[in-house]
Amino acid sequence: MLLSKTEPAAPQTINAEGNSPFVLICEHASNRMPEVLGNLGLSAADLDRHIAYDIGAANTARILSKLLNAPLILQSYSRLAYDCNRPPEAEGAMPEISEVTPIPGNKNLSAEAKLARVNQIYRPFQNAIAAFLDHRAAHNLRAIPVSIHSFTKLYKGKERSVELGLLFDRDAWLANLLVKSFPGFNTQLNEPYGPKDGVMHLMNLHAAPRALHHLMIEIRNDLIESERGQQQWAQRLSIPLQQAAAKLGEKK
Amino acid sequence: MLLSKTEPAAPQTINAEGNSPFVLICEHASNRMPEVLGNLGLSAADLDRHIAYDIGAANTARILSKLLNAPLILQSYSRLAYDCNRPPEAEGAMPEISEVTPIPGNKNLSAEAKLARVNQIYRPFQNAIAAFLDHRAAHNLRAIPVSIHSFTKLYKGKERSVELGLLFDRDAWLANLLVKSFPGFNTQLNEPYGPKDGVMHLMNLHAAPRALHHLMIEIRNDLIESERGQQQWAQRLSIPLQQAAAKLGEKK
Repeated sequence: MLLSKTEPAAPQTINAEGNSPFVLICEHASNRMPEVLGNLGLSAADLDRHIAYDIGAANTARILSKLLNAPLILQSYSRLAYDCNRPPEAEGAMPEISEVTPIPGNKNLSAEAKLARVNQIYRPFQNAIAAFLDHRAAHNLRAIPVSIHSFTKLYKGKERSVELGLLFDRDAWLANLLVKSFPGFNTQLNEPYGPKDGVMHLMNLHAAPRALHHLMIEIRNDLIESERGQQQWAQRLSIPLQQAAAKLGEKK
Repeated sequence: MLLSKTEPAAPQTINAEGNSPFVLICEHASNRMPEVLGNLGLSAADLDRHIAYDIGAANTARILSKLLNAPLILQSYSRLAYDCNRPPEAEGAMPEISEVTPIPGNKNLSAEAKLARVNQIYRPFQNAIAAFLDHRAAHNLRAIPVSIHSFTKLYKGKERSVELGLLFDRDAWLANLLVKSFPGFNTQLNEPYGPKDGVMHLMNLHAAPRALHHLMIEIRNDLIESERGQQQWAQRLSIPLQQAAAKLGEKK
């Protein structure tokens, strides 16, 4: 087994009964590694970098969950163990190199080692989201998956000027509603990356096949490193999201 | 429980070790009802109609599975209990009316009744497909989901002239390869219905998020009612599918 009984399950659900139409998701919430994987051959300093998780995203999502009274599903383990926004086919699912850093513990994984990560990290997380959405559907309740991410300012030596990315693939409704809601911040649709970069896996898995509105929110991580920034951004995001929810009206 | 221990599990997998890149799927294989649902208030004659299952599809798929040495995953229960090509959100998942026939046993289902069907028919079937694809991915083996369906010639009083439909959503590769392969038959892309009609759910759930080639094959059911027609169509389909497989080359 990859995870022992004393380690947390891959999916953590907070505020499951929250009555917001938004279902918050944070797949890159944590830099925790399954004990048996050690540090994957990385230094502790590397495990604190953006390659291991989305800095500031989990706490921003937790605050936003409170402000919206929205459920939040977080992944307990680092994306270096398994990146839950990538399918098992993708090289980035269990990356041998992340940005420019080789990940020794991901090199030449056997099929069995890959399947252990798929079956104990990726699948339980996706199953928790699917079950949550099934439950909402059976009760005729709306569900709009919104994932909270952060990105690094300096990537492969280049600076990114975008501060807030609103990413979508098959449904632009929520992104279009929000794009003018952050005056003074460099807000872009499908930047600093988008569907063609393979980053919409989770939304394509859960939102598109169910024809749900969706949004992937990417905040530049220097803006939400501090608790103050996390508070500010959760507040800033909550206002247009609540306005969008108000536009939906009653379901059925 | 919806299904008793003496009833078959929702997914049935045949020829799991088959080495074809194609992974055959037949979600409307059977008109069997879970015992506890009885006939959903329908006559036995109605349960033999296309509203309950895709006439001829399962047997055509079984023969094709042998000809291609391809795995085949079939659903054991009628689409009137749960239509595995629809998400739980869709009205067609547990239809109150199918074509023009009211389905009394699907009327005003409680959330609990819906969830029992989702959890015991829909999810185990989708999970079996997902696990199969995960296994292929971990072993660096190709997987091209191909689902086998049939459609009725007379629908809501109108005759359909199309005989073979090649349906796709996000990837046209296989459909385009096959479209000229059936001389003498009225073959159409995304007919008699297509992505806008919500019929690509299963492919959008399994193929699109993994960036897999895919194809949904729809054969007019008068052509595959008989065993002879099933044999002919399985043979007819196997040839261009094998030619397509040969174009793929080695993975990685």
